[in-house]
Amino acid sequence: MTPINLLYAHSGGVTAVINATAAAVIEAARAQPGRIGKVFAARRGILGVLAEDLIDTGALDAGALARLARTPGGAFGSCRFDLPADEGEAVTDRLFEVFAAHRIGALLYNGGNGSMDAVARLSAAAQARGYPLVCVGVPKTVDNDIVGTDCCPGFGSAAKYLATSMREAGLDIASMAGRKGSVFVMEVMGRNTGWLAAATALAAGGEADAPPHIVLVPEVVFDEDAFLARVREVTERLGYCAVTVAEGIRKADGSLIMAKSRDERGYVQLGGAGSAVARLIHERFGYKHHWAIPDYLQRAAGHWLSATDRAQAMAVGRAAVEYALAGQDGMMPAIRRLATTPYQWDVVPVASGGIANLERALPADFVAVDGLHVTAAACDYIRPLIEGEVVQPTVGGLPDYRPFALPGVPRQLRPWQG
Amino acid sequence: MTPINLLYAHSGGVTAVINATAAAVIEAARAQPGRIGKVFAARRGILGVLAEDLIDTGALDAGALARLARTPGGAFGSCRFDLPADEGEAVTDRLFEVFAAHRIGALLYNGGNGSMDAVARLSAAAQARGYPLVCVGVPKTVDNDIVGTDCCPGFGSAAKYLATSMREAGLDIASMAGRKGSVFVMEVMGRNTGWLAAATALAAGGEADAPPHIVLVPEVVFDEDAFLARVREVTERLGYCAVTVAEGIRKADGSLIMAKSRDERGYVQLGGAGSAVARLIHERFGYKHHWAIPDYLQRAAGHWLSATDRAQAMAVGRAAVEYALAGQDGMMPAIRRLATTPYQWDVVPVASGGIANLERALPADFVAVDGLHVTAAACDYIRPLIEGEVVQPTVGGLPDYRPFALPGVPRQLRPWQG
Repeated sequence: MTPINLLYAHSGGVTAVINATAAAVIEAARAQPGRIGKVFAARRGILGVLAEDLIDTGALDAGALARLARTPGGAFGSCRFDLPADEGEAVTDRLFEVFAAHRIGALLYNGGNGSMDAVARLSAAAQARGYPLVCVGVPKTVDNDIVGTDCCPGFGSAAKYLATSMREAGLDIASMAGRKGSVFVMEVMGRNTGWLAAATALAAGGEADAPPHIVLVPEVVFDEDAFLARVREVTERLGYCAVTVAEGIRKADGSLIMAKSRDERGYVQLGGAGSAVARLIHERFGYKHHWAIPDYLQRAAGHWLSATDRAQAMAVGRAAVEYALAGQDGMMPAIRRLATTPYQWDVVPVASGGIANLERALPADFVAVDGLHVTAAACDYIRPLIEGEVVQPTVGGLPDYRPFALPGVPRQLRPWQG
Repeated sequence: MTPINLLYAHSGGVTAVINATAAAVIEAARAQPGRIGKVFAARRGILGVLAEDLIDTGALDAGALARLARTPGGAFGSCRFDLPADEGEAVTDRLFEVFAAHRIGALLYNGGNGSMDAVARLSAAAQARGYPLVCVGVPKTVDNDIVGTDCCPGFGSAAKYLATSMREAGLDIASMAGRKGSVFVMEVMGRNTGWLAAATALAAGGEADAPPHIVLVPEVVFDEDAFLARVREVTERLGYCAVTVAEGIRKADGSLIMAKSRDERGYVQLGGAGSAVARLIHERFGYKHHWAIPDYLQRAAGHWLSATDRAQAMAVGRAAVEYALAGQDGMMPAIRRLATTPYQWDVVPVASGGIANLERALPADFVAVDGLHVTAAACDYIRPLIEGEVVQPTVGGLPDYRPFALPGVPRQLRPWQG
């Protein structure tokens, strides 16, 4: 049998460990020289496939792969691009032209819910066209919202970073607590689900009255009165109050909590939920108010990776190569929890078509009855995912994230006009 | 000679290594049992002295002290409180009552510019009253703006955290760069000086076109046209642009760059420089825009300390105890740079009266001629201060920052009515 070439692509927002998955894919594929020929990576995800802009990962030696496996961001570039629903589209034609031109027999697509939809569609398109392609989805998202897997690579490291940040900022604000009262609000990612917000509850470490005192998640309608009453109660008692807010919290009418206003020139200004909530507290009670928005920092914190998360990111990469070789078309390696204490897990295949475009919210028993915090069950679920550290070699006091040599594969087709 | 008691107090905003200074003070004082009796710490800084709310640090065993030396925040509590200028004030009377009641012969005051003024004034007040007190200032500030010392404990760790954060967020945004253009703005602390903003320039590690592409500091008037032109040039060329903004940048008329506006209910909304600059870019060019505000996270990041910074924080603590015992009243241990490559430093005494209330800005040759970045000279100065890592023991994947047992000293005076 002639070896097939394998194509790996990032899809959607990147994480602190998506490169670890990529490195594991490349390593696992190299371990099968009789069955896998070249390992290509798409530059900028599916847009790179359309542009026939492929990288030959053969240029990455063992040292570079080890470094890739601890470098945050997406080394090959990513994009947000939805495949057209109509499979007769020129886009799909072009993808298969590129696959054929480079003898690609396996596509490993590393993304979230939307990417699993793309995997299912490309799998169907290949069958319809009679093109020999095995499509495998590889899970990734800091949002932890993919259905069919116990957790998602990328989440554990972001969760560890945010829980650490809340614990540390909490010590800072506690130091300055006084009679006037101060509040600290940290806005975390999560437009529709509260997984990352929930992770900050681990900061308390089981200590009563330790930060965060309030955790607001999108699964619960924002109740301004109940929220303000709790802020006041905590601040009057402790001198300060630390709050985690998911960016996507909403009012009963479905509108986002954000500081929407017109500036002096008439432009509409949009502030995030964090600043809106901090200002709301300040306006009501006059407390000193601070807010933090880690933004990209929370999904790129390679200096403080969860070793568990990174191990899982690599395991799904290796499993995806196995599935490709076993012809398990349209499947995604999922993480299965075997035990929580001590934590045990393995990787099992699930069909991408069955989970595509779904979104896993926090289960009801992970949210406190009053809607202002998360439960011990949520903490028990998340805790093992943030455990373990990864030592990052440094140069000049900073993590060594030197750029990689990523030579392009010679083009064989006409330029894409899409 | 009867041993004196020593009183240590945090003052002003805390840092990731102010507890390291505190731990070094306690250790150094314990090593002089014949000359120093008790080591007290004020709860909540000078407010705790006024309230006669003192902590007996004797409760901290060697293990607790080692843990204190790697715990961010101010374990004893701090405050912002200016001593009244008139030394005849009731406040000063009360302070000396408390000193006398607890046989305090040395005050170690750990703060910034304003605190050095307090040291000079308390020193003068003690002499005027004939009270035998040695006052020693101990430097601390993430702002790095104390005059008379080459650098300030607290700065190096915040600088390391911010440079790491810019390098990591830069990898994330570079992964997603595309034809539409995206910008990332990180707002860092620095109301009047650009030391922390300058530190993020280390993220580039000497690579051309690496983030941050623009660094805005308060020492330079914000030139909107020049700034936007640079943003456009970088984004059109690279697909993205990463910007560091110090919170205190100002226009030519002296006003802060912030999103000041009225919301729908008529309340004035204040956004920081980071969101204002990000929105300005978005409005002008339509680029996708993100902004991060690390806020307290940048001065509390104990999980990613600079070992150099921590060593200096401990060295000034030990030196302060030496000065107290040598009767070097009104002095502050300063860090002196002996060589940059390899970095060598020592600690020397400077008079707090001569440096009080001054503020050290970035020197002119640390800022690029166009005002949109900092120079290689700035990077050369900052680089050694962020070097070295401190391994943080973790529990459950998070740094072990358990609370400390901090028993109060029995009160001997009437309650303070101030």
